[in-house]
Amino acid sequence: MEKSRLDKQFDFCLEADKEKRIIRRTLKSDCVNYENDAEHAWHAALMCVLLSEYSNEEIDVLKTVTMILIHDIVEIDAGDTYAYDEEGKLSQRERELKAADRLFGILPEDQSRKLRALWEEFEAGESSEARFARAMDNIQPAMLNNATDGREWASRGVRLSQILERNEITPKGSKRLWDYQLNNFLLPNVEKKRIKNEE
Amino acid sequence: MEKSRLDKQFDFCLEADKEKRIIRRTLKSDCVNYENDAEHAWHAALMCVLLSEYSNEEIDVLKTVTMILIHDIVEIDAGDTYAYDEEGKLSQRERELKAADRLFGILPEDQSRKLRALWEEFEAGESSEARFARAMDNIQPAMLNNATDGREWASRGVRLSQILERNEITPKGSKRLWDYQLNNFLLPNVEKKRIKNEE
Repeated sequence: MEKSRLDKQFDFCLEADKEKRIIRRTLKSDCVNYENDAEHAWHAALMCVLLSEYSNEEIDVLKTVTMILIHDIVEIDAGDTYAYDEEGKLSQRERELKAADRLFGILPEDQSRKLRALWEEFEAGESSEARFARAMDNIQPAMLNNATDGREWASRGVRLSQILERNEITPKGSKRLWDYQLNNFLLPNVEKKRIKNEE
Repeated sequence: MEKSRLDKQFDFCLEADKEKRIIRRTLKSDCVNYENDAEHAWHAALMCVLLSEYSNEEIDVLKTVTMILIHDIVEIDAGDTYAYDEEGKLSQRERELKAADRLFGILPEDQSRKLRALWEEFEAGESSEARFARAMDNIQPAMLNNATDGREWASRGVRLSQILERNEITPKGSKRLWDYQLNNFLLPNVEKKRIKNEE
């Protein structure tokens, strides 16, 4: 017997719980513990609601928040790929596509298609909502890294050029928030030599 | 010099990080670790997006999700009050009001008023959005408690009458989801004697 629509939805909701096990490379403000994907998604979604007024373009906030809530779900199977792990990034796309097939496939077909499309849109970063969601995804850890005295940047030897490359999309989502991030979270840590600036 | 609007918004975003430190009495699906408020809010917000079709009344989903994202923020100062801690519940309202003053007070005035009003609306449970948000707030931990073999209910000696009392609002948010919760998450655990039914 095929599962009911509601059974499939609750199966997905329960499976999503595993996102709480995926540890990121961002220290929480207690300076001791690393945040996980679920905490990160909550934080970035909250920031999206509070900061949407600074989006370069008009955005559908619910669509953007939904994108943020699910943007890391594929890491349940594919694991977290650290932003500056150049080797891991090579196989990342393949691992994540396979994960998307399995995870979104748990849902009823209409929701499966809808969430999968939202995730692909986030990845592509070509809509106004995706650009703003990606900006939140970048600003939230930068805020925490700065608040924890840049230790994660320092201990991993992260270079400014790497951060700038990853943040290429951030000013496309919000010029204003990118300026704030650069001046308040990044440059002070370059000055204090917690972020390398060898060029 | 008064802080800029953006400074105040980022101050709040950073302060909100402390919600990740507030541990709840719900086991995650790994059966080992307890979830925190941020993880819970993410999970309930995601469930809200996926299950909003079952709301008894039409709801503004973005408003409901926003409510869920911030509903526990006062616990940063007031701490988590366990649903079945009758003594703690006596001083809960007073502690939470004081926390709301301080925490929402960090934001620029317009956002402070807006978020505070949303939190009060959630607490009052009298709008269609608040009723659905409260339903999510109840169903999410019930789903996890069931998935972890009801150990939290059993180890704390929780009674069915307490769960029914707490869930008085759940069918007002969604009759359909309440039926699902009762039949799939609660009654099987009464039968297995993980939830006490002494009446």
